[in-house]
Amino acid sequence: MSHSTLSPSIVVPSGPLSVLASCIDHTLLEPDVTGAQIERHCAEALEHGFACVFVNPCWAALSAHLLHGSSVRVGVPIAFPLGASTTSTKRIEAEEALRLGATEIDMVLNIGALRSGDRNLVEQDIRGVSEVVHSGGGLLKVILETALLTLDEKLVACQLAMAAGADYVKTSTGFGPGGATADDVALMRGVVGDKLGVKASGGIRTAADALAMLQAGASRIGTSAGVSILQGLSSPSHISSSRGY
Amino acid sequence: MSHSTLSPSIVVPSGPLSVLASCIDHTLLEPDVTGAQIERHCAEALEHGFACVFVNPCWAALSAHLLHGSSVRVGVPIAFPLGASTTSTKRIEAEEALRLGATEIDMVLNIGALRSGDRNLVEQDIRGVSEVVHSGGGLLKVILETALLTLDEKLVACQLAMAAGADYVKTSTGFGPGGATADDVALMRGVVGDKLGVKASGGIRTAADALAMLQAGASRIGTSAGVSILQGLSSPSHISSSRGY
Repeated sequence: MSHSTLSPSIVVPSGPLSVLASCIDHTLLEPDVTGAQIERHCAEALEHGFACVFVNPCWAALSAHLLHGSSVRVGVPIAFPLGASTTSTKRIEAEEALRLGATEIDMVLNIGALRSGDRNLVEQDIRGVSEVVHSGGGLLKVILETALLTLDEKLVACQLAMAAGADYVKTSTGFGPGGATADDVALMRGVVGDKLGVKASGGIRTAADALAMLQAGASRIGTSAGVSILQGLSSPSHISSSRGY
Repeated sequence: MSHSTLSPSIVVPSGPLSVLASCIDHTLLEPDVTGAQIERHCAEALEHGFACVFVNPCWAALSAHLLHGSSVRVGVPIAFPLGASTTSTKRIEAEEALRLGATEIDMVLNIGALRSGDRNLVEQDIRGVSEVVHSGGGLLKVILETALLTLDEKLVACQLAMAAGADYVKTSTGFGPGGATADDVALMRGVVGDKLGVKASGGIRTAADALAMLQAGASRIGTSAGVSILQGLSSPSHISSSRGY
């Protein structure tokens, strides 16, 4: 088990900001991101002590270089955001990301196969990537894209991810029709118990959003708004002017 | 040169529907598409005589099986829709798609590298995939994702795609903040002349949209609305009730 040290029931507001920062994956995945933005993003991660930066595969090497020697890890999404690559391509993409310096891999499961009822393909797809990621000493999160799934499909996806050796289940890509909800996080935590981590991602823009996810059972938060979330918690005036709490 | 036989100046309205159908890439790329939907999609392509079906890599083999022996080709998008994979992964993904039966490959260029001014990376990335695709007897289209680019970046992207051996330039993924516009198609046709094809894609929902793209210089249309576009042209009452022409 290598997921976050935060327990599902932790409530952060009264704790230090660094506890919240340490469970944030600082995320920058837009396709038009430039090298200069990656540099700024990595500097922010160092400054605030985020768990990880999440960047697309073509930026893995630069990010690993910029974060070398720090505690901030490099994470890369695989088959992102559609999940509709072949297992063979997913494995190779994960292998390359690890070679370039990533240590966390967030793969999108084969959503179409899940919706077609092909549980065997979904499980083998995850297991194939899991083997590669764990051989390379990395950690694997499996993105369900919950907004596209029925309740039953969400449950099955969590079970298959667990059976196939994933380290985390994760709600959303942030590119789908909806993001993380506290209900989905609670459901996923309910299925995986303390065996896997749960990462909430997609649409988490405020400190209130982030804390609701942690309270629902998330052990990691994926967001591109990590800096403003921390500023929101550290600045009462900022909080009251933004969302009224 | 292996792009469509339609000349840039062709105007289709008075011609047979089959001419329009033969320049449509019948597209189904949502991540939650099921096997049953792929079967229906391929049957539609056979019925209407579309140029190609466009499906995600995990459906290439099924589609190639269903369309075997017909004139409808199988197309697969690569590094889709973000384009932010490494060149090495793009090459392997393209190679696998060809092996599974695809003969047309639509790759997304490295948008972030283009926006970072790294023309060399963008060109080498396209050339790397071009080598693989042409070795395998396929045709390569390069997606610019025009909605994310400045005018200058669109021009440079067309020049780099041409220099790197692409067969087509293509406007959009359909997953970005905007789709094809007649202005962008005309611009792209202006740069590539008659050396490359131009594929208009993203947001093309009606016969009027499709015809505007052809008139602007497109030689291929990527759309998920091909069937209703053809029905719109063949049914005057349907046309008048939809867009008033």
